[in-house]
Amino acid sequence: MAANASPLRSSFRICSPFSVSYHCCRAALRLHRKHDSPRRHFHQSAIRHAAVVISGTELARKLHREIQRDVEELVSQGNVRPHLGVVSVGDDPASRTYVRNKTRAASILGISSDTVVLPSSVSQEKLLELIDKMNRDWKVSGLLVQLPLPEHINERAVCNAIAPEKDVDGFHIVNIGKLCLDQRSMIPATPAAVWEIIKRAGIETAGKNVLVAGRSKNVGMPIAMLLHSDRNHERPGGDATVTIAHRRTPRERLKELTNLADIIVAAAGVPGLITADMVKEGAAVIDVGINRIQDPKTGKVRLIGDVDFEGVKEKAGFITPVPGGVGPMTVAMLMKNTVTAARNALMH
Amino acid sequence: MAANASPLRSSFRICSPFSVSYHCCRAALRLHRKHDSPRRHFHQSAIRHAAVVISGTELARKLHREIQRDVEELVSQGNVRPHLGVVSVGDDPASRTYVRNKTRAASILGISSDTVVLPSSVSQEKLLELIDKMNRDWKVSGLLVQLPLPEHINERAVCNAIAPEKDVDGFHIVNIGKLCLDQRSMIPATPAAVWEIIKRAGIETAGKNVLVAGRSKNVGMPIAMLLHSDRNHERPGGDATVTIAHRRTPRERLKELTNLADIIVAAAGVPGLITADMVKEGAAVIDVGINRIQDPKTGKVRLIGDVDFEGVKEKAGFITPVPGGVGPMTVAMLMKNTVTAARNALMH
Repeated sequence: MAANASPLRSSFRICSPFSVSYHCCRAALRLHRKHDSPRRHFHQSAIRHAAVVISGTELARKLHREIQRDVEELVSQGNVRPHLGVVSVGDDPASRTYVRNKTRAASILGISSDTVVLPSSVSQEKLLELIDKMNRDWKVSGLLVQLPLPEHINERAVCNAIAPEKDVDGFHIVNIGKLCLDQRSMIPATPAAVWEIIKRAGIETAGKNVLVAGRSKNVGMPIAMLLHSDRNHERPGGDATVTIAHRRTPRERLKELTNLADIIVAAAGVPGLITADMVKEGAAVIDVGINRIQDPKTGKVRLIGDVDFEGVKEKAGFITPVPGGVGPMTVAMLMKNTVTAARNALMH
Repeated sequence: MAANASPLRSSFRICSPFSVSYHCCRAALRLHRKHDSPRRHFHQSAIRHAAVVISGTELARKLHREIQRDVEELVSQGNVRPHLGVVSVGDDPASRTYVRNKTRAASILGISSDTVVLPSSVSQEKLLELIDKMNRDWKVSGLLVQLPLPEHINERAVCNAIAPEKDVDGFHIVNIGKLCLDQRSMIPATPAAVWEIIKRAGIETAGKNVLVAGRSKNVGMPIAMLLHSDRNHERPGGDATVTIAHRRTPRERLKELTNLADIIVAAAGVPGLITADMVKEGAAVIDVGINRIQDPKTGKVRLIGDVDFEGVKEKAGFITPVPGGVGPMTVAMLMKNTVTAARNALMH
């Protein structure tokens, strides 16, 4: 879901690639924050400061520049331009928007793409035939089938039909297995985005407590895998102590555990699940939720996350907004996976 | 490791298949406990009672009877007798013992087996050729290669060479992927044993806090997967809130988290890691550790777990001993996997 949030421009500056420390961040942020209160001054260290708001939009912009450079480097070395093949089944408006966001991002970054749209009545057999054809097409570097699929099609069979080295969504059973064994693999874009945000914001994970709210196979579970595993393995992990909570976790127990967490990753799809009273002072809060709600006053639909942003930002050390947080980074990570797929093809 | 503990007879009676409740268990236990203190009487409910000691040996015995029955049912239906093929490389004495324990258990349960012993100088190519031959041999239902392998052989390549439906160790990348996606798969024997013990002892997991100490890919990680996942999925999970801790978890933080846990699974390979002060009153403590230590007085080598058994049993509600806990159940679960593999063969 988060993969498809429209990348809105945040009103905050991002301020910390790896080299910038936590406190430098805060100082930098204060210079740039729009709604800074007059109470907050550089030397009033005893006063509680609101969180550093990590702009996924800004981080994604930086990542885009890196990807563009990688693409041009590949092409200038005489390789074929990375190409993303997209298969879309049916005419769900949301799916169409998601696909358009992805192909538009590809285009901006110099990645070519094409989208095959199939009617919702297409048989599983026909879909698998198309995937097989695209697997064998050397011009297609990366390949994704937009989910969800119509009910008569087995999504797992479709995910497993995509060649693992072209599987930019990272949903193939072998890519899931490799992820869980800490081997190099195509990592699903949303968990990869969360991990990238944490790293680029300079948030320490080793020996820290992480609470992941949500156990979905595309988001919560892989995030837990990335963050708990060994940083010295083939695919380095976060060396954090990770708790996986979910809808069967009683509210009071969730609160006990979030209050021990240095990092909270909210990926439950529950609006306002994480409130200020559940957050430890100074914790990093990464909001993966993308919930569409109708504003009771204006009647307009807007996106909100799983975190009560206004309340939590007064207590947390870092926070990602929705929109403009994990969403744009997710699209960027999908593009990064496409370049990785193009590199994989060179090795085969 | 735990797979290979010699199944010693516990001095305690096991007392709770699914149907027996926690309190019935305690009553039953008191009647049978050998070292019961005179202070502990049925009506002194305010007095603290020592934990129910779950005998893996007794549980395994029950499971053995079920497996024997399944084997004979398969054979009486005209199917080939389940057969376990074992490949052992080199002459490591520990490996030899482990292999002997497995084939002996198979023999007792009516499962035929054969062991191919290869010299430690064997090439990876030769080993893979043998595996390929055994994969194609319809008489071999289940197949395992005893680990560890000599350094010149890539263990992952060997695990992935075994046909997933014959992979009774559950180490094939596809079986790992399926396990992590909650699909039916061959589950590695030690995590399967822990899950089976919890279920057969009637320990509730849904909505409970579980702390898994240890993140190994054969034990800790799969246990966390089994216990946190949804009980309504294809392969039902425990619906617990699960924390994965490991050697990078600071001691004080580990203690904070174990003290919140209703179930502690100790699988870190650290003797005496879990002490009474770390355990919540009434918690279930499952000890997967198998550590060989030399008794300073007698000079003899003996097995101890990751749990300070004597201290913790006074505080916990359930506890498994070492030896005689997870070890014998692990061997039994391997045999169960072999019968599953024989059934898989009927469907192919």
